Amino acid sequence: MNPRIKKVCTYLRSHKFGAILVTQKSNISYLTGFNSCDAWLLITQSKSFYLTDFRYVLEVKKKLKGIQLVCYKKSFYDTVLSILIDEKVRILAIDPDHLTVTQYKQLNRSVKSCAKLIKSQKVVERFRQQKDAGELKLIKKALSIHKSTHHYLKRIVKPGISEFEILRKLENYVKSKDVGFSFEPIIASGPNSCYPHAKVTHREIRNNELVLIDMGIDVFGYKSDLTRMFFLGKIPELIWDVERKVREAQRRAISVIKPGIMIGQVDDQARNYLKENKLDSYFGHALGHGVGLDIHEDPRIGAKNTNKLEENMVITIEPAVYLPNKFGIRIEDMVLVTNKGCKILSDDIY
Amino acid sequence: MNPRIKKVCTYLRSHKFGAILVTQKSNISYLTGFNSCDAWLLITQSKSFYLTDFRYVLEVKKKLKGIQLVCYKKSFYDTVLSILIDEKVRILAIDPDHLTVTQYKQLNRSVKSCAKLIKSQKVVERFRQQKDAGELKLIKKALSIHKSTHHYLKRIVKPGISEFEILRKLENYVKSKDVGFSFEPIIASGPNSCYPHAKVTHREIRNNELVLIDMGIDVFGYKSDLTRMFFLGKIPELIWDVERKVREAQRRAISVIKPGIMIGQVDDQARNYLKENKLDSYFGHALGHGVGLDIHEDPRIGAKNTNKLEENMVITIEPAVYLPNKFGIRIEDMVLVTNKGCKILSDDIY
Repeated sequence: MNPRIKKVCTYLRSHKFGAILVTQKSNISYLTGFNSCDAWLLITQSKSFYLTDFRYVLEVKKKLKGIQLVCYKKSFYDTVLSILIDEKVRILAIDPDHLTVTQYKQLNRSVKSCAKLIKSQKVVERFRQQKDAGELKLIKKALSIHKSTHHYLKRIVKPGISEFEILRKLENYVKSKDVGFSFEPIIASGPNSCYPHAKVTHREIRNNELVLIDMGIDVFGYKSDLTRMFFLGKIPELIWDVERKVREAQRRAISVIKPGIMIGQVDDQARNYLKENKLDSYFGHALGHGVGLDIHEDPRIGAKNTNKLEENMVITIEPAVYLPNKFGIRIEDMVLVTNKGCKILSDDIY
Repeated sequence: MNPRIKKVCTYLRSHKFGAILVTQKSNISYLTGFNSCDAWLLITQSKSFYLTDFRYVLEVKKKLKGIQLVCYKKSFYDTVLSILIDEKVRILAIDPDHLTVTQYKQLNRSVKSCAKLIKSQKVVERFRQQKDAGELKLIKKALSIHKSTHHYLKRIVKPGISEFEILRKLENYVKSKDVGFSFEPIIASGPNSCYPHAKVTHREIRNNELVLIDMGIDVFGYKSDLTRMFFLGKIPELIWDVERKVREAQRRAISVIKPGIMIGQVDDQARNYLKENKLDSYFGHALGHGVGLDIHEDPRIGAKNTNKLEENMVITIEPAVYLPNKFGIRIEDMVLVTNKGCKILSDDIY
């Protein structure tokens, strides 16, 4: 049994749960070690079962190590029931964040004669927050490819090219490196940069304006996520001024990152500084988020998060100011929480 | 108010529901007419509200016609509550297929002082099954690009090229047409074709073998979805024999398609024929599915579906035989249910 599943078994024993049904794709990928598809994972205190259908059985068989493969045919829920009976499970934990109301109802109807359902949130997500050495290696690999991609962007982002043309070239470049994107890149030029999640348009980039590019590289499921600003020609002083403020807000937030600090305080650092400069009302989203197998994962770096940072978390810090119909500035870096403080993983990408 | 939302309002009045919360992305895209992101749509008997957050407000504003834009800040659920109070809604329909257990609980907690939640499945999905003229036009447009893509594939699928190289070329070709894929293409050569949802590998295609390619083109959200077999060189008689049987199974299924026929009977036609030929145990999935804004949407063309086909439904018919570790044959076409029978939309793609 692999150490990640072992952790879940220990959790089940300590909570006196007979089993847990893992229903979120990246949680399953994390626990199995491969990119899972249309499958659920049932873990008891000592065994694990990978439930999938006909379409995937042959392919998955080769990849599963120490996990039993179960191909369900008629009813998925009845297949769960039969395992619960065989394994004498009386309490089944489920994840209410990753089960629809309909799925919950059907599951409950099928298993209620044998087991009680208990809602248990973020069991696997909690383990996933702190990255192990193998995960950090993949994140760093993603960042190293991100670095060369950024240098490529610096060569091509020039007046005359359109956002869409940049995207095309970017796609080809990334493909030539045999990797993929973490998410659909955001390439927002001039006033388009005031939309936090701008869609790529055919707008042509002009001299004396800025371009915001938010992108990430995916290496075996692990992701990078950085936003960089490109300034072309002569930029108005207002833009430089906002850029300095956003950068300072980021610096202040990063300066307090260490294990044990309450996450809301990190957000406060950036937001209060923007407030002092009357810019906080133009910063409507959270300061950052965890990143790993999911592009947005726990912990959320928001004002209301009272949890604490822990060693080996990898988070983004991305303060921003969006001036409606004018421009937006976002600066996003990835930070690793170390045993005494933190390390900016992306500070060599500029 | 657009006619699609009007239909929902009529539904609400006839069921005496005060409002419905639409939470599934393609349902929202269908009702608003644009590709929606991170938003929910609340429709009362006479009004509609598009709820999204800070990141999308500016962009979305321009696109909404006759729908009120509501930017929620602190709590999404409290924003819903305040609309329900303003509009005097006492019964709110929700879609249990597209709301997690956690979301349902939070929503219920927020609104229970004002409104009762009623579970109502597939309200919008039911409307979406029958395509209107504009939708059919986009599906046909997707198929016309699919046709040229298929001819391109016929030129490049040759011994010596790998599955992965085919994918690369295919991606570039599709991009050059300014469209995208409906889903990640399946390119499965030789024995890989026995995996119904094979992942693309670096396997090189040899002479005297088959290649299964399942792909689709997306035009403004509307999709094509076809599987074609490519036979290179001299193919063993067993493969031809299975191919003929699968083709005949498809022909028999399509021959009975017309408005009013029970969907399970269409599946039976194909499955029973394969059974007569002792091949049904190698055909583990449903015969087909609806296709439109989602690649898999209602109706599911499965043995147990007791609903009836209706005019202007667009469905795939894709019988298959997968012989483990040997090869697989799948033939998938798209069929439009017409007023008296049906029309194969993809019969000119070969």
